Amino acid sequence: MKEYDVVVIGGSAAGITAAITARKHYPNKSIALIRKERLVPIPCGIPYTFGIVGSPMKNLIPADDLLSNNKVECAIDEVTEINRSEHIIATGNGTMFKYGKLILATGSNPVVPPIPGIEKKNIFAIKKDVAYLQDLIGKLDKVNDLCIVGCGFIGVEIAEECRRRRPDLNISIVEMLNHCLQLVYDEEFCIKAEEVLKEQSINLLLDEKVDAFLGGDAVEKVRLSSGKEIKADMVIIGIGAAANISLAEKANLEIGPTKGIQVNRYMQTSDNDIFACGDCAEKVSFFDGKPSNLKLASISTMEARIAGANLFSIRRVNMGVIGVYSTVLGGNAFAAAGLTSSQAIAKGYSVITGESEAVNRHPGCMPGGANLKVRLVFEAGTGIILGGQITGATSAGELINAVSACINKRMTADDIATFQTGTHPALTASPISYQLVNAAENAIGSMYIYR
Amino acid sequence: MKEYDVVVIGGSAAGITAAITARKHYPNKSIALIRKERLVPIPCGIPYTFGIVGSPMKNLIPADDLLSNNKVECAIDEVTEINRSEHIIATGNGTMFKYGKLILATGSNPVVPPIPGIEKKNIFAIKKDVAYLQDLIGKLDKVNDLCIVGCGFIGVEIAEECRRRRPDLNISIVEMLNHCLQLVYDEEFCIKAEEVLKEQSINLLLDEKVDAFLGGDAVEKVRLSSGKEIKADMVIIGIGAAANISLAEKANLEIGPTKGIQVNRYMQTSDNDIFACGDCAEKVSFFDGKPSNLKLASISTMEARIAGANLFSIRRVNMGVIGVYSTVLGGNAFAAAGLTSSQAIAKGYSVITGESEAVNRHPGCMPGGANLKVRLVFEAGTGIILGGQITGATSAGELINAVSACINKRMTADDIATFQTGTHPALTASPISYQLVNAAENAIGSMYIYR
Repeated sequence: MKEYDVVVIGGSAAGITAAITARKHYPNKSIALIRKERLVPIPCGIPYTFGIVGSPMKNLIPADDLLSNNKVECAIDEVTEINRSEHIIATGNGTMFKYGKLILATGSNPVVPPIPGIEKKNIFAIKKDVAYLQDLIGKLDKVNDLCIVGCGFIGVEIAEECRRRRPDLNISIVEMLNHCLQLVYDEEFCIKAEEVLKEQSINLLLDEKVDAFLGGDAVEKVRLSSGKEIKADMVIIGIGAAANISLAEKANLEIGPTKGIQVNRYMQTSDNDIFACGDCAEKVSFFDGKPSNLKLASISTMEARIAGANLFSIRRVNMGVIGVYSTVLGGNAFAAAGLTSSQAIAKGYSVITGESEAVNRHPGCMPGGANLKVRLVFEAGTGIILGGQITGATSAGELINAVSACINKRMTADDIATFQTGTHPALTASPISYQLVNAAENAIGSMYIYR
Repeated sequence: MKEYDVVVIGGSAAGITAAITARKHYPNKSIALIRKERLVPIPCGIPYTFGIVGSPMKNLIPADDLLSNNKVECAIDEVTEINRSEHIIATGNGTMFKYGKLILATGSNPVVPPIPGIEKKNIFAIKKDVAYLQDLIGKLDKVNDLCIVGCGFIGVEIAEECRRRRPDLNISIVEMLNHCLQLVYDEEFCIKAEEVLKEQSINLLLDEKVDAFLGGDAVEKVRLSSGKEIKADMVIIGIGAAANISLAEKANLEIGPTKGIQVNRYMQTSDNDIFACGDCAEKVSFFDGKPSNLKLASISTMEARIAGANLFSIRRVNMGVIGVYSTVLGGNAFAAAGLTSSQAIAKGYSVITGESEAVNRHPGCMPGGANLKVRLVFEAGTGIILGGQITGATSAGELINAVSACINKRMTADDIATFQTGTHPALTASPISYQLVNAAENAIGSMYIYR
């Protein structure tokens, strides 16, 4: 039997970050990480392996280096059972590990909906598995009609990268909501994203569900709820992920309302010696504390940094998920943090919004200039920020993190309007037209009208 | 006599922003702005008129459009006197303006040191004056040896842009401190900036003062305190700016310890009906509240947004200057916010620092990847952030504003380490190696050692 102060189960973003954090906070503890897969894909990089990155083998987390640099022992093995009373876990290879504290970072599996015909060949979900992805990409080069189910981030990014790889491929996306990316952006931003996709001859089928996958052994057509049938000799499903909780269930740990492993604000499960983080863990909204099924690598690592630090002495609290996203479509960044207007209204807030748009250079003729638009959402009475959306220049990828800091600290529109920012001719808009600040100022203008 | 609810004196970043803010907050008030110059240069863009922008005429604030769009009347005129008891100002053109509230945004003038020979021809300071700058640039094309005095932001940016314009020009910078940009960055970052300048054959003369400008009518040489003499048929002085307080002094308004117009946290001067903002106004440090002589366009607009909103009803408070900077040298961004380690130690703090460096893409082979290094400075006992410095990828220009938000809200290293950030393969480092978060985590590692 091997014995460690800390054992981490799971070797993707959450598991690695939890182990590294544990090492930093507890320099003298022995730490082991057990993961199933030898090669660990970068989850958010997967769509890019279809195009610009070229291969799943170029999209790997340098997991072994990260772990050995932080003196974390690593076993490639599958945990089959947790004996909580003995603090012992058993693996498929027949090894027993005794743990002081255990961290579950078992991740998630892609949702595969029980649609008739789902078992047909050439229907893929996006698994974090190098061999599976290599097979998928190999087949992608031989098909004519690709149908992507789900127009969230994975769907739109895969569509763009498949277009980059195969200019001749017929690409459709089926989405049950009215707009692509609707869970993250307000309508105007969704429409902009849709335009970018259409410019790349990506066929959008919105407000449509898949009724059946048709064909012989392999998929040939997709039948939609409207009755329409579209040709498809390959289908990629990107409609979300479900927490992988099988080990936790078997160990009788409490499971939460969205079917994640229930955790408290310290990331402890119903067993105080077992922590959970990442996609496998239950989450609550930063805003109202209600269950949230957001799953993002950046949320996983945030939770892992809380779990890893709290193992032997509580020092960090999880305030819940804000949801901070970014992507690039047709060279335009699309970034968002927190609630959209419609999400906020659905939660019961009265909202005001402010927008500001300007070139991210001053003067505008400085090289590299691109338009950047910021939209901020505030609670009307207090002026506290609830969310923000940014499109345009790629500096949005970091600007959204300034927005997230504002949300984290519940800054008001006045705080943000007088927020001390840095600006530079070659990097940002001018201080007069700085979008983040002006969007807040413009929202205050509409507060007066609201009142 | 003309009569307005609000009169703003000064038409650069502070004046314009104050007038626009007043309009937004007080939609029914009459507002006028009086400025001396017909053409208003973008202050931070001036160095780029020497190179990439090509001409001062391409570096103008669209002042008239901004003002008329916000229903602010504008007069090109020079205010000569303020009669506080009558609330009347007089101008050089002989017009009288009656004001309800007055905002002084009279800016600053470049410091011209009383060095022997300073009166010689071809010695320039950087005035915000289009004709003056055009003359300077015209002469720049005819000289062989340029000496820049002062290795702050203006000095280094002008040096690079002069190199871009004139690959054959002999360029030297004289700096009395040990390093370039030493007031903004810790040593390692200064040295990196110096390397970038040296690669462009810019000659750095550090730890040197100018003793005299030598020559006939026009400057020919610069004599340094070490006794060294360097050839210079043109000199540009960039050693800072002094508040333009002549009107305020004449009106017997209180003047502060750094010779700015004294203001309280609401931006009111010693006369409650007169506000001041921007380079002309006295400032205090966000950290210790002591007088600060920082002058930045982004500070000016921040103060203007406070002054403009507070005119008829106080709603905003100035928490003091943090100082948020960015620039690009040799294609590398250099950004900073708050205190450097040495500034913090000089103020009496015990500091800990944390650093983190990674490519701003994941996987690193994604296009456009560049290294990005974050260094954060914290107070050792509380872990509250005091400052941050970033070099490398140009996304630093917005990331520094996330750092500034953290400073604004006095976030701790633990707050930042568990800060909810967004990451994306095409825009940022991976969530595991995200530099801002890891720099905070690494500082916590050194806190244990410190304690």
